[in-house]
Amino acid sequence: MHLYEQIADGIQEMIEQRVFRPGDRVSSVRKLMVQRGVSRATALQAYQLLEGRGLVEARPQSGYYVKAMPMPEPDAATSRGAEEGEQIELEGTAAKVAEVLESFREHPEYAPFGVAVPSPEILPNRAINRALAAAARHAGARQNDYDFPPGHAELRRQLALRAPDAGFAVSPEDIVTTCGCMEALNLALRATCKPGDAVAVETPTYYGQLQALESLGLRAVEIPSHPRTGPDLAALEGALRRTRVAACLFTTTYSNPLGSCMPDEHRRALVEDLLTPRGIPLVEDEVYAELHHGPARPRSCRAWDREGLVLVCSSVSKCLAPGFRVGWIMPGRFGQRVQLLKFMNTLATPTHPQAAVAEFMRSGAWEHHLRGMRRALRAQVARVRAAVSEHFPAGIRVTRPEGGFVLWVELPRHVDAVALHRRALAERISIAPGPIFSAQGGHAHFIRLSCGHPWSPRIEQGLAALGRIATRMAAGAARPGRPRAT
Amino acid sequence: MHLYEQIADGIQEMIEQRVFRPGDRVSSVRKLMVQRGVSRATALQAYQLLEGRGLVEARPQSGYYVKAMPMPEPDAATSRGAEEGEQIELEGTAAKVAEVLESFREHPEYAPFGVAVPSPEILPNRAINRALAAAARHAGARQNDYDFPPGHAELRRQLALRAPDAGFAVSPEDIVTTCGCMEALNLALRATCKPGDAVAVETPTYYGQLQALESLGLRAVEIPSHPRTGPDLAALEGALRRTRVAACLFTTTYSNPLGSCMPDEHRRALVEDLLTPRGIPLVEDEVYAELHHGPARPRSCRAWDREGLVLVCSSVSKCLAPGFRVGWIMPGRFGQRVQLLKFMNTLATPTHPQAAVAEFMRSGAWEHHLRGMRRALRAQVARVRAAVSEHFPAGIRVTRPEGGFVLWVELPRHVDAVALHRRALAERISIAPGPIFSAQGGHAHFIRLSCGHPWSPRIEQGLAALGRIATRMAAGAARPGRPRAT
Repeated sequence: MHLYEQIADGIQEMIEQRVFRPGDRVSSVRKLMVQRGVSRATALQAYQLLEGRGLVEARPQSGYYVKAMPMPEPDAATSRGAEEGEQIELEGTAAKVAEVLESFREHPEYAPFGVAVPSPEILPNRAINRALAAAARHAGARQNDYDFPPGHAELRRQLALRAPDAGFAVSPEDIVTTCGCMEALNLALRATCKPGDAVAVETPTYYGQLQALESLGLRAVEIPSHPRTGPDLAALEGALRRTRVAACLFTTTYSNPLGSCMPDEHRRALVEDLLTPRGIPLVEDEVYAELHHGPARPRSCRAWDREGLVLVCSSVSKCLAPGFRVGWIMPGRFGQRVQLLKFMNTLATPTHPQAAVAEFMRSGAWEHHLRGMRRALRAQVARVRAAVSEHFPAGIRVTRPEGGFVLWVELPRHVDAVALHRRALAERISIAPGPIFSAQGGHAHFIRLSCGHPWSPRIEQGLAALGRIATRMAAGAARPGRPRAT
Repeated sequence: MHLYEQIADGIQEMIEQRVFRPGDRVSSVRKLMVQRGVSRATALQAYQLLEGRGLVEARPQSGYYVKAMPMPEPDAATSRGAEEGEQIELEGTAAKVAEVLESFREHPEYAPFGVAVPSPEILPNRAINRALAAAARHAGARQNDYDFPPGHAELRRQLALRAPDAGFAVSPEDIVTTCGCMEALNLALRATCKPGDAVAVETPTYYGQLQALESLGLRAVEIPSHPRTGPDLAALEGALRRTRVAACLFTTTYSNPLGSCMPDEHRRALVEDLLTPRGIPLVEDEVYAELHHGPARPRSCRAWDREGLVLVCSSVSKCLAPGFRVGWIMPGRFGQRVQLLKFMNTLATPTHPQAAVAEFMRSGAWEHHLRGMRRALRAQVARVRAAVSEHFPAGIRVTRPEGGFVLWVELPRHVDAVALHRRALAERISIAPGPIFSAQGGHAHFIRLSCGHPWSPRIEQGLAALGRIATRMAAGAARPGRPRAT
């Protein structure tokens, strides 16, 4: 990392922590030179970088000012929770999800805000594919055999080595590798629930989780989620009193689409006060946890788990290699059942991709890559957020995530997100409409924007065009359609 | 293929078709020279090859004779079918399966007759891994992205090109790639059944199928299976009259462990007379279908399917690359549902391994490799069969499969297969005991021997030692244990 980037990151942190507020003048170039002992050129580079990220603006003869960001964050409770687990309308949601995925598959040229995938430009494709090629070339005689559950030994060792970063210890024997995080979630749900059971999920939440529940014959009990702090624990406690909940399924660290991250005290209360006394397992989706924008990753809920009730699920799909399908589960007390279900579901996880990821971790390339990727994502999220502020209609609200790479945008109430999504598609822009993130079709005036791509004219033009469509729709007469749950 | 190999194959076929019977003198070397217009050396090489395969023996001053193979095949109906779908005792079976898998994982030095995996020695590991390395190095910018369902376009095209070999046509759009055949079977069952439903399976059958049923909350209705012709259709018809069956799950071509292959007329009757009128789907496991010992592969039941009721499931795990986890399903009328379930189960199939398999098929290396592998497997199966005849106790019976690489051995009735399996493990020999192939713990005096490895001293010694253990157990007093269903 260059010195000017370090300086820019420091100032960005102060802006994010509201030490500098919108409209404030930040330290002058001269002051920065003295404070940090750097050249004028370096100080200027730092500010130019922040300007590029959309965080500060130069005012002639005056200096650099924190750019006005008039967007508040969405309401704490953006949706009602369900009193009872509600049946998920799979086919309806599936069709809309399919539109989003199809734009990704068939139209890579579309402005890519729809699917939460990191751009190949910020992934170490050459290095990781070299590792894959090496694994394919150099492994021993049984190189290509089934790697039966629990899976690749060195990969499990590398994962166990890193668990303390998340605040807990785990043995390699207590890890099972999977075909991506999605299989891990499925195994966790199948190990802890039976068809007909109710599962508490946050709302909004990742549509894949909702669809997995439906496909397993499980009911979703939606718990309102706060854009910063995640599931509303009081609401969860109420739901646990009213309904027999078989498990909770929460993305505790940089949830999708909210970007929320549970504070330690919430994690402790969730595990120690709410779940452990009732013996309710927590399926913890940690797939975004490595993508913190700050210096360290938050602890996993597993850190407070004394009973083996927290099943940690993750993968390398969001931070290294989506196409490898290498994920894992740390199933706690459900280890034997999970291992058996893994065998029955896909028999084994691909051998070479596991070997490549293990080698990538062993060599230290993993940490190096993640440091760079975190910086890139932080900058991308800030740029997209600034562009939304510039181009979208007045009255919108946008989340301010501390990790991951998605933004959740609340539009004026009368703007229909699905209609916006379809108009955007017609202009070759892919976004994800709010209703696919709910079991009840709620979040009708929200959209999710993925910030997986580095800033470029294509991204900028896409956001400007999307803003124009949204502005036109917001300016149109409030449509007479049926009232919608939000 | 060398000329002497062609000649040997022709004679082997005549032996297998009982044109030459055990004890018969086969054509003399001189006659062969005249018949085929070859040199004496070539004729001798052909017989030496057949001798090596355990099919003929030289008698001094007399010539070559078909080796006596006193083993009859097992009874047509080796087990009773269930009147009702019976609950599968998952944990009991799972523990025995785990022992077999563990010997594979932890003890590669054990004599390897337990797990049905082709030896790396007969797989084109260097070529396929070069293809994987090339896919990892050379693909475009999105090389490592998710390959969302239906999966890799070129792989689906290559599969569609080959479907006519199995007697039907399919569009690439009607194929979904999966993480191995096991995921394909799971998706097929989930698309056609709901928890609590009954599924007709042949017995004995692959334990993974039985465990998958259990894990999905499905009940198994066991249909007796003939060692040559597969499921007993009269028994199936009776079961369909008595029980509401949601689907059939049959390995129609070289089943595991029987090695049976349904004749065309049985396939026609199954699809046209039994299933189509009742609207019952057939999940057809074709994972061994490419491993025919004869010149052409049998047709799939799909060839008689006019209603989209046959879901064909397969993979490259048994014939190319077990570790790649590349499989597929041709789901007929259940396409939309299967594609959705695939997305929910594992999101996507590994990208690079699919690309490598597609390239392997596109280049023609696939067909070249399969030709050699079929010859190798035919020879290995014949050698193991001959060694069993030599070393095992009198009164055993062994299947005579026309494809695949497993043998199903019926021991004297008082020999307990699980006890034999454990004694064999203690002598560093891995086998698969019969009861794991039944939902009811039947087949107590059967074992499955995998012939995935080329003949070697280690294989020969392993079979001799296994024969000694079995002979000792057969000679021992009939044990007083509880009577067992077979």
